[in-house]
Amino acid sequence: MNILEIIAKKRDKKELTKEEIEYFVKGYTNGEVTDYQAAALVMAIYINGMNDEETTNITLSMANSGEMLDLSIFGKNVVDKHSTGGVGDKVSLILLPIIASFGIPVAKMSGRGLGFTGGTIDKLESIPGYNTNVEIEQFINNVKNVGISLIGQTLNLAPADKLLYALRDTISCTDNIPLIASSIMSKKIAAGANKIVLDVTCGSGAFMQNKEDAIKLSETMKEIGKLAGKETVCILTNMDEPLGVSVGNNLEVIEAIKALKGDMEEDVKAVVLELGSYMIKLAGFGENIEENKQKILENIQNGKAYNKFKELIKNQGGDISYLENVNKFEKAKFIIPVICDKDGYVEKINAREVGIISGNLGAGRVRKEDNIDQSVGIVLCKKVSNEVKIGDVLCYVHANSEKLASEAVAKLKDIYIISKEKVEEPKAIIDIVK
Amino acid sequence: MNILEIIAKKRDKKELTKEEIEYFVKGYTNGEVTDYQAAALVMAIYINGMNDEETTNITLSMANSGEMLDLSIFGKNVVDKHSTGGVGDKVSLILLPIIASFGIPVAKMSGRGLGFTGGTIDKLESIPGYNTNVEIEQFINNVKNVGISLIGQTLNLAPADKLLYALRDTISCTDNIPLIASSIMSKKIAAGANKIVLDVTCGSGAFMQNKEDAIKLSETMKEIGKLAGKETVCILTNMDEPLGVSVGNNLEVIEAIKALKGDMEEDVKAVVLELGSYMIKLAGFGENIEENKQKILENIQNGKAYNKFKELIKNQGGDISYLENVNKFEKAKFIIPVICDKDGYVEKINAREVGIISGNLGAGRVRKEDNIDQSVGIVLCKKVSNEVKIGDVLCYVHANSEKLASEAVAKLKDIYIISKEKVEEPKAIIDIVK
Repeated sequence: MNILEIIAKKRDKKELTKEEIEYFVKGYTNGEVTDYQAAALVMAIYINGMNDEETTNITLSMANSGEMLDLSIFGKNVVDKHSTGGVGDKVSLILLPIIASFGIPVAKMSGRGLGFTGGTIDKLESIPGYNTNVEIEQFINNVKNVGISLIGQTLNLAPADKLLYALRDTISCTDNIPLIASSIMSKKIAAGANKIVLDVTCGSGAFMQNKEDAIKLSETMKEIGKLAGKETVCILTNMDEPLGVSVGNNLEVIEAIKALKGDMEEDVKAVVLELGSYMIKLAGFGENIEENKQKILENIQNGKAYNKFKELIKNQGGDISYLENVNKFEKAKFIIPVICDKDGYVEKINAREVGIISGNLGAGRVRKEDNIDQSVGIVLCKKVSNEVKIGDVLCYVHANSEKLASEAVAKLKDIYIISKEKVEEPKAIIDIVK
Repeated sequence: MNILEIIAKKRDKKELTKEEIEYFVKGYTNGEVTDYQAAALVMAIYINGMNDEETTNITLSMANSGEMLDLSIFGKNVVDKHSTGGVGDKVSLILLPIIASFGIPVAKMSGRGLGFTGGTIDKLESIPGYNTNVEIEQFINNVKNVGISLIGQTLNLAPADKLLYALRDTISCTDNIPLIASSIMSKKIAAGANKIVLDVTCGSGAFMQNKEDAIKLSETMKEIGKLAGKETVCILTNMDEPLGVSVGNNLEVIEAIKALKGDMEEDVKAVVLELGSYMIKLAGFGENIEENKQKILENIQNGKAYNKFKELIKNQGGDISYLENVNKFEKAKFIIPVICDKDGYVEKINAREVGIISGNLGAGRVRKEDNIDQSVGIVLCKKVSNEVKIGDVLCYVHANSEKLASEAVAKLKDIYIISKEKVEEPKAIIDIVK
């Protein structure tokens, strides 16, 4: 077997065997296959495709390319949750303590995000003292003790995926469904999950811009899960406008804390209930989805979910006084309203544009080494379908520079599209692929 | 314009503009476009194709990527000849002095060959004293003085082609007609030709294994020539068995000298006459192909061609006593016959296999820095269609090691396929695309 034969096969639209795919992934990880050979093969895959078996094989090869997190001590139903990304997505912060509040073990190791805001790990670090850099043994003990631990990526998980992901970016091969699906699933499998609930975001602020592509991606990931023996459910959620009301690190943590205390935005609630019910089902804690939703609402109302969150934060060294009094979080220097200048109904708030503005304020990072400004971001007062009048506050910009604030205000005025006609309330859940 | 957009366009099977192709070729040559980006684009080109306009544009961009040889001092009809390569191909050595003997200027700068034997330049160096490393000014003066000069590549011609050629080899993208055609034509154009006669070899010892592919390649090159304003004629020649009787450096030079003295093998003669007649026509020295052939035969018989060869060698410092007495050429230590062990007719002599054996004896080079053994090779006594009897000598192996000699003898026994039935004499000229 050699890489030239493997490239030639895919170039000629033939199916690659499990052994050939493993040869490529291993070779690329250890440097025997060069970047240009990988680029040629990836382009051939992009153009000529991979079937479900090939896609599953590349997923498993990438999952096996580095260290793997072993969570078998917590049984056969370790369930993980993943989102394909979006703007204002604070679902993990709310959902994972809820799941843990049912006694379902939550052991999540995540990488830091690149994008409009930080990832879940970055957001947790906005709580002073919270330690994301925890050794594996301690991590496992945390889950044993309090049922939940969320830490940074201390293992070298799926290095082949990291290499291929970075390469695809430089050769115009990002938007390919088998490659996206295998990238997501390889990370989940390496991180120890054997049941996976995926939040497949869809719309202007998501990687998948339309429902058709989101369904295709979901079906591919479900099929990988099936062939790899990891039951997978995909929930397609709306990401055409930002989720919830806040975009930015501290702002999203504050929204998550409020939600766990019972004050949850409707769109966030719909997503949390849907994802959570399937997580409970896959974990073997309840077959009936509607009943599971009721149970989740109960655990929010009776304080169990919020208490679990407090336990998590405390156990990892975080200052829980910030949870009790969210006013303790550092605030941005400038909080400027964006004022509505016509009567009507909000028709659109392009999520991607809001994300870019938030990133420009300093909430996100472009390179791994960039610092995140925890306090900046945007708080939406009006969302799609809301009636608005001249003089209403559409949203607030939280900024640490007057110049950046006024740029953001000007842009947000353009991004809020106001219609004279009534606008229907968008559905938070678009579809479910199970 | 950026490389990601260009890659994405070809990935999506769209046509690239002249500017986009130039951007890529320039960027790759100066290092702004990386190897992996070039690899992705080349794979997309391989799979999705290029039309004649794109192929012409990449040809011209590659021709323009380095220094260009300016032969305009010799008029508008500077004609060059190129072969797509083969085994026992000594046509240039014979043909170019013939062309010069008509007063048609021959100014040829060639790279050293990689392959079964050296290139024309390597072969000329087997004549002691012949200087292939000549400055441009002297080169032009040589052509002015004696009408012909053959030198090594002292200019950096078409560096983009060199880079792409090497890259294609490592990513399974060699056998693609637009890429092969543009590679050949870019080198010819950079080397100053504005009329081109191409010897498109076809068969087991050639890059094009069958007539269909050879025709496709020829039509593509003819079309590039047309769009680039360089009139091009392609002669498809048989390379299923080696051309002529000798394979190896000194051995081929000796065959060429004999041919110029009037003792020319029939298949070599057919190729020389056909290519030569079209070169004379394109140079504006005779419209009628059949008449041109007669003129060539005359210039061989009356000694003008041989004398022109002597002038060339002498003018570049070569020892012409080697021409007068070919026995002066260094001989290999072992000259071993391969004996026929059945009665019948030679059906096949796989040219590629003969080339590999000759290479193993030391006649060729695998890497640029390898040394060539000038004296080794193979001399064929029997060719396809010849009748043979038990005990006949099929060919002689010329080797400098007994071990290599006996290996070569054993292999050649297998390569000579003897049939009981009569075998038709193969045609040297397969087709002409003009």
